[in-house]
Amino acid sequence: MGGNTIFTIEQNKLPEEFEIITINSLEDVAKSISTMIIRGAPAIGAMGAFGLAQAIQNMDEPNEQDIKKVRDFLFATRPTAYDLQHGLNYVLNETLKETDEESMKIAARESAQSYVDTSAEACRKIGEYGNLLIKDGDRLLTHCNAGAFATVDYGTALAPMRIAHSNGKKIFIFVNETRPRLQGAKLTAFELYEEGIPHAVIADNAAGFYMARGEVDMVITGTDRVAANGDVANKIGTYEKAVVAHENGIPVYIAAPISTIDFRCLTGNDIPIEERDKNEVLDLNGIRVASEGSSALNPAFDVTPAKYITGIITERGMFNPGELDKITR
Amino acid sequence: MGGNTIFTIEQNKLPEEFEIITINSLEDVAKSISTMIIRGAPAIGAMGAFGLAQAIQNMDEPNEQDIKKVRDFLFATRPTAYDLQHGLNYVLNETLKETDEESMKIAARESAQSYVDTSAEACRKIGEYGNLLIKDGDRLLTHCNAGAFATVDYGTALAPMRIAHSNGKKIFIFVNETRPRLQGAKLTAFELYEEGIPHAVIADNAAGFYMARGEVDMVITGTDRVAANGDVANKIGTYEKAVVAHENGIPVYIAAPISTIDFRCLTGNDIPIEERDKNEVLDLNGIRVASEGSSALNPAFDVTPAKYITGIITERGMFNPGELDKITR
Repeated sequence: MGGNTIFTIEQNKLPEEFEIITINSLEDVAKSISTMIIRGAPAIGAMGAFGLAQAIQNMDEPNEQDIKKVRDFLFATRPTAYDLQHGLNYVLNETLKETDEESMKIAARESAQSYVDTSAEACRKIGEYGNLLIKDGDRLLTHCNAGAFATVDYGTALAPMRIAHSNGKKIFIFVNETRPRLQGAKLTAFELYEEGIPHAVIADNAAGFYMARGEVDMVITGTDRVAANGDVANKIGTYEKAVVAHENGIPVYIAAPISTIDFRCLTGNDIPIEERDKNEVLDLNGIRVASEGSSALNPAFDVTPAKYITGIITERGMFNPGELDKITR
Repeated sequence: MGGNTIFTIEQNKLPEEFEIITINSLEDVAKSISTMIIRGAPAIGAMGAFGLAQAIQNMDEPNEQDIKKVRDFLFATRPTAYDLQHGLNYVLNETLKETDEESMKIAARESAQSYVDTSAEACRKIGEYGNLLIKDGDRLLTHCNAGAFATVDYGTALAPMRIAHSNGKKIFIFVNETRPRLQGAKLTAFELYEEGIPHAVIADNAAGFYMARGEVDMVITGTDRVAANGDVANKIGTYEKAVVAHENGIPVYIAAPISTIDFRCLTGNDIPIEERDKNEVLDLNGIRVASEGSSALNPAFDVTPAKYITGIITERGMFNPGELDKITR
């Protein structure tokens, strides 16, 4: 954020083009989230925080009703990721602690920046705790993109890999391409290539092949929302990979800031799952790949029950998914 | 086959274009298999049989050594599918029963045709036996294409669906798009649409989502080779789907003619797995989708252990994968 303008990378154009776009209105903010110009739970939490702060700057007389209306409008842009709600509520609550117009605007700006700084610091710590789990020579598998593009910095799932690599551990990453939107092939592979971390893109279908062969030592992904019982919503396909990893005795770690845990969702059944445009499946890069006349179904996320998850790596260390209540105590 | 020319559909151009190509030389036959102009285990078995018969017609003096050389050359075009070997050996053995040149040529032609007719009839019977397993209202999931394009007629996995549908059962098919080559989205969806069978294409990642929700009653796929112990090699991703189905109590059926069972492979570990060009993953319809600089791994098949398979539907009825020895007795 500079002045009252938000700058972000147009992620739909990556990796071919690196375009920075400017966001000046509430409509721009909503569109950037719903069309996935910005995606990844922590990153859209940051966009939500900045977006609400920007909207508050633009209000003639900031007031609770209008601020809540903006909060609700932005939260509806993508229903699954909890960080978005978290970021919005943080800025809302900090702003409403003030009463006069100018102090509210300052509180909005400062709380948004503070939310984002805290998020970046959380990712760095997740990287450090996650690195403790990675041994020299380990072969990791990840799904979707939970790297720097998905967060404010470092990433969640990719943070431990970055730190392990920079500490000289020899690691290799299987990158699930992650249909339908190919965030693995486009974003994760790009980040790993830029950092010089050895990796290979695979069709999502091939993850089980390498697991069954004993060539995967660990699965690490991010998450869009964790329920109180440790069930995890993440990019569609995560559930399958976790079941197959579990069947093969491979640990599954979920890297997530504590802000991703929604204690009001008791189980994964309470997490809303976004259904996206069927053309994301029927088309690829704007070209129809599926048979004409056929339709598609396109759930964007799935829920992995806690029993398939070895640990949730947070900025306060690793937690067993069954003991998340320790975090609130 | 007409005269000494083989006609086949250029499946790489489906569903956009329906092109019949003519095959007049051994090089054409090999290329049609290796570049997947024709694909699907029974279909490449048929191409192998016709291809060898064509080569024998073109020999000045057919003899065991030359015929075996052609058999070995064609078998090397794709290593996983057992029907190819089966079709080639059938024509070879029938031809070598004769001694004079003209009788050998006739035996080659007639045995190739007989192999293909037998294969078509096997698929029809698979459809009838498979249909017995399908209840009105069932929701089925299939992977890759084991339909008419993959076989001589009817298909293997799709044959039971065709017969159930034509018998008036209301069924719905989840069609895994089947990356990297999208045979589900391109071929299976096309066949189902043409037959008016309700279906939806899904990203391969979404199969587990619908299974966990209780929305899938049965998984049916084809196979490229079955080992003596009931382990099944099939299109990459089949293993994952079978594990997740098993975890959710959903039956997994494999539809295959008996010619697909290789009793000399004691277990799935003995089945060679083809690794295909990495650009099948990095590109889509010839367009680079993955990050530049990144590479890929592309195993074309995986092996599903027999313990995840409910039954193998053959032209002689359904067999438990653990009792395939009953077939030879």
